[in-house]
Amino acid sequence: MASVSILSIGNELLIGDTINTNASRIGAELTDAGFIVNSVRVVGDCRNSLTRVIHEEWSRVDILLLTGGLGPTHDDLTKEVLAELFCTKMKVDERVKQHILSIFENRKLPVYPSNLAQAEIPECFEVLFNPHGTAPGMLLHKDNKVLVALPGVPYEMVYLLTKEVIPRLQKIFSNLTSRAVHYMKTAGEAESVLSEELIGDISSFLSAGCELAFLPGPARVTLRISSTNADPGKANLAVNEFRQSILGKIQGLIYSEEKDETLEQIVGKILKDKSLTLCTAESCTGGGLLNRLTDTPGSSAYVETGYVVYSNESKGRELGVDAELIEQFGAVSKEVVLAMAEGAAYRSGADVAIALSGVAGPGGGTKEKPVGLVWMALKTPEELFALRLLLTQDRLINKERSIIIALETLRRTLLGIKRLPYGLEKQA
Amino acid sequence: MASVSILSIGNELLIGDTINTNASRIGAELTDAGFIVNSVRVVGDCRNSLTRVIHEEWSRVDILLLTGGLGPTHDDLTKEVLAELFCTKMKVDERVKQHILSIFENRKLPVYPSNLAQAEIPECFEVLFNPHGTAPGMLLHKDNKVLVALPGVPYEMVYLLTKEVIPRLQKIFSNLTSRAVHYMKTAGEAESVLSEELIGDISSFLSAGCELAFLPGPARVTLRISSTNADPGKANLAVNEFRQSILGKIQGLIYSEEKDETLEQIVGKILKDKSLTLCTAESCTGGGLLNRLTDTPGSSAYVETGYVVYSNESKGRELGVDAELIEQFGAVSKEVVLAMAEGAAYRSGADVAIALSGVAGPGGGTKEKPVGLVWMALKTPEELFALRLLLTQDRLINKERSIIIALETLRRTLLGIKRLPYGLEKQA
Repeated sequence: MASVSILSIGNELLIGDTINTNASRIGAELTDAGFIVNSVRVVGDCRNSLTRVIHEEWSRVDILLLTGGLGPTHDDLTKEVLAELFCTKMKVDERVKQHILSIFENRKLPVYPSNLAQAEIPECFEVLFNPHGTAPGMLLHKDNKVLVALPGVPYEMVYLLTKEVIPRLQKIFSNLTSRAVHYMKTAGEAESVLSEELIGDISSFLSAGCELAFLPGPARVTLRISSTNADPGKANLAVNEFRQSILGKIQGLIYSEEKDETLEQIVGKILKDKSLTLCTAESCTGGGLLNRLTDTPGSSAYVETGYVVYSNESKGRELGVDAELIEQFGAVSKEVVLAMAEGAAYRSGADVAIALSGVAGPGGGTKEKPVGLVWMALKTPEELFALRLLLTQDRLINKERSIIIALETLRRTLLGIKRLPYGLEKQA
Repeated sequence: MASVSILSIGNELLIGDTINTNASRIGAELTDAGFIVNSVRVVGDCRNSLTRVIHEEWSRVDILLLTGGLGPTHDDLTKEVLAELFCTKMKVDERVKQHILSIFENRKLPVYPSNLAQAEIPECFEVLFNPHGTAPGMLLHKDNKVLVALPGVPYEMVYLLTKEVIPRLQKIFSNLTSRAVHYMKTAGEAESVLSEELIGDISSFLSAGCELAFLPGPARVTLRISSTNADPGKANLAVNEFRQSILGKIQGLIYSEEKDETLEQIVGKILKDKSLTLCTAESCTGGGLLNRLTDTPGSSAYVETGYVVYSNESKGRELGVDAELIEQFGAVSKEVVLAMAEGAAYRSGADVAIALSGVAGPGGGTKEKPVGLVWMALKTPEELFALRLLLTQDRLINKERSIIIALETLRRTLLGIKRLPYGLEKQA
């Protein structure tokens, strides 16, 4: 169990000009490598704060990993502070110096003393050569602890972290805890329903040392099962048993068990496997559904056409929806959305059609048809039905949720899964 | 000078499952409001760490702002820890309780005790009602300090931060440093061209104490001018003089001077002002352009129809693009994209048409038509022309940039601005 604290340095991170993607990447890489990240901190380019925070964290963890503050300008303080804290002088690293000189020569730029100062490293640190930039990384192994400082430029940081730092850490801390992790992704179910109704009692797995986290997104919940154990075999076994138990309860509701796989990729695979083509007829989602589907490379194999029929006239002109139908039931209605799906499939010749029409908001709601009311229809070679969704007051969230629910409805229907998103009932 | 520490809570942030965008957003909003953010920390869902870190930071800063850990599940510990640290009991907030019940009733979901527990708040805290979710925010004002806890869902957090928290903080801490800030948003120009070629020498403003930051996004750069001064009048004056100088050089290239205004909102306003309707004919962007335009409330006033003509057949069927034209020049060509724009305008009757066809990647590139080649065409009542874009190897970035460049081309053309994005030349 080697514990880690990540310390990101830079005013730009505090005032929100830069999002701290470095800390996430480091957290993910070190977690996967068997370390326990238990703190992330951000401090500005300020000598006192930096000294205090390094001091605090160094006394608390096994590994302290710093990024940033290694540049050539006056606000880059990391090396000075480290030299002071560890009572050491600076030394010039000849290889780094030559590397800096050659970079400047290639770019035909003058070399200032501040540029060459990047080759100076606190004497007690090992230099981690950085082929991608002028600031090297550095590593100190002392009192069974490790302190690492890396440049803040993301691709330079990632290179040094994965190629230089993690291999050294794994040698130094040979007695690592093994953490087994497994992801199960769902869409179209509320977190509380998943947890309490569909999955139910998991106390035996929790008391056996497993953890279950619900990671929510709009209309989506990812389950993360994990188990930590000195013995990797035991950790894997525990996670797998937990996984089997959850699969036994909600298998059909899990669209993917790959951390980075998206719902639109899964829907695309199913369409491709079944040699089905798809068209969409979108009103309130404004093209967002097809936009999502075409984020996947190779989607031209199953995406035929999309109609964004925003005006009432276009619903008639493009999809043949009867003006009287719109007059009688309104553009946001079961009748119109069913006609949109049928019209789109007929006109495009696609096998599957999804139609969406709703009151996205914030305006345009009435008592009968409030903001957040969305009708969707799905036409497959076998059936045609509509679902009534009642979403939120927020326009963008309504668009996003409608899209996810439409994709998940399509997925479950094509796979013959009986339960529809949120337990909704088919209407025809 | 009221100092702030931000504390983000959640294992998902430590292990890199979630990027901490909340901390950046909070940092930016509080900095703009005159506060000094001097620390960001992340801790996991662990009672001991959370207690220790709240204790450490509360003793050190004027304002401690927590996000996360307010959900209904067993790993949400924020309220318990706060109640313990501030020796207080929990109370049920009736308004929040009714709000939770009505949300579940509207969605026809069962209400569990864990859901209702979200209406319980540590007694000494003020409740910040959250219309967008089930977890309210809460605020404690004690010993001239303020502790705030907000839900971790980004849009709920932003709503409470800007509408409830910042106004209260500005009342409580009246003696703030004055920081004048002004944003100028551009699209379709490279940062270096803006900086060196279009804006040029700004040294006199920098030596007068102003700062200029270039905040880059895909195909966009926001300029942030700022000045800090004990006297708010002087700070404002300095920023305004700097602004005037920049406007004198690149006025037409600035689409907005409102921090949160989007390019699609601006384009929508121009279309509305000129009583023009719009249609789109998208291939490689898959509906993303119209999706973006319909993110703006009221966009039905100018959005007529969108055609997502992903297959070659659909380009003919929906837009009347001649199959021979596609055969001769390829789907990604000046000729086809011009025909798409003309066909879409003709078929839909809209005044303005934008067409996009490109090789989004990662596959499908050839030597002549590499990944990243995108043709766009614009038809207005006055003219019809095409632009040739050469973008990146990344599919999603190519979609995003194409959309932004299309919107900016439309904006500049409708406003009669001569320079097109990136200085590109019209082709017909």
